[in-house]
Amino acid sequence: MGTPVTAPWKQLLLQALESQSHLKHSIYFQLATVGTNGRPSNRTVVFRGFQDNTDKIQINSDTRSRKIEELKSCPFSEICWYFTESWDQFRINGRVDVIDGSNSDPEKLQIREKSWFGCSMKARLQYLDPEQGCPSVNEQPKEFSLDPCAGPVDAFCVLILDPDQVDYLNLKSNQKLKFMSRLSDNGEKYWASLKTSPEC
Amino acid sequence: MGTPVTAPWKQLLLQALESQSHLKHSIYFQLATVGTNGRPSNRTVVFRGFQDNTDKIQINSDTRSRKIEELKSCPFSEICWYFTESWDQFRINGRVDVIDGSNSDPEKLQIREKSWFGCSMKARLQYLDPEQGCPSVNEQPKEFSLDPCAGPVDAFCVLILDPDQVDYLNLKSNQKLKFMSRLSDNGEKYWASLKTSPEC
Repeated sequence: MGTPVTAPWKQLLLQALESQSHLKHSIYFQLATVGTNGRPSNRTVVFRGFQDNTDKIQINSDTRSRKIEELKSCPFSEICWYFTESWDQFRINGRVDVIDGSNSDPEKLQIREKSWFGCSMKARLQYLDPEQGCPSVNEQPKEFSLDPCAGPVDAFCVLILDPDQVDYLNLKSNQKLKFMSRLSDNGEKYWASLKTSPEC
Repeated sequence: MGTPVTAPWKQLLLQALESQSHLKHSIYFQLATVGTNGRPSNRTVVFRGFQDNTDKIQINSDTRSRKIEELKSCPFSEICWYFTESWDQFRINGRVDVIDGSNSDPEKLQIREKSWFGCSMKARLQYLDPEQGCPSVNEQPKEFSLDPCAGPVDAFCVLILDPDQVDYLNLKSNQKLKFMSRLSDNGEKYWASLKTSPEC
């Protein structure tokens, strides 16, 4: 049972991504969390790929952003990913692991480092801005310098969403599929699917 | 003080809508709610306009959809509305009022009726499908008939989101604005704004 099981929805998602790779916004999706006041919170983030050969979704973030605080009190999220040309919608619900510099797992720290070096220098510099996450009154763009070889700064973290339910809907064909993860007797994750209405 | 106060973010939103009216998906946004299990929930819905001259946002929905159940246990939502050409993002947080056929307020029932007749016949027919909201095994499209003059069916409801906080971000210019509603001494709503980082 050592063979990695490909999630059935992952193929659909990869097809949507490939067919719309000419659209810059095709890698943007909306990530919902529950705020510390119990209200929903929702923002656009950028897809940074699947973690290795898994179905886990990677996002880069700033430890000072509100979503990190929110994920600490409620570690669940739902992605809503709508593809504007193919009219595919994926609602991906799961638990989010926040990997910051204080993580004690060397493998996770390696993921964070790899993701850091995968960022452009411009993107890396954003994590140095001391005013990120705070009200700004300074109109002038600030200049920072950063060694291209330097590892991730404190504010840089990686979110790994481990999906346990995916609702797929195509608004052209009205095709609807629901995928649910299950654990087998030996503790391995597998996916079950059924045809359904979108809101089930 | 009887003059309606235009929300300062509404003008920005109307500009984004107008400049991207050639894109069908410009009126689609993601609506996050809190699920009955306490986890976030997120889906794409269609903007149906502002209610009269107010800043309240209207969405049509089906009473059998999961979000209605969710809004009954937690009546708050955050819209994330990303405009793919102008790179404007609006995060609109507020309380949601669900108007279904059992509502006792004649004015609200009138809003529901007006919205029903604003729907195409094809859209109206969706609310007659007995399998909406339930797993479907039937592959055949079903045929229903509906009198064009008949009022809203039971499953049709209108959501009115009354915003109390709006975070605006333009990803091209990195302009960030935060708008918060306040109540004046005489109980009227007004908006305060400040320049800020996006996640504040």
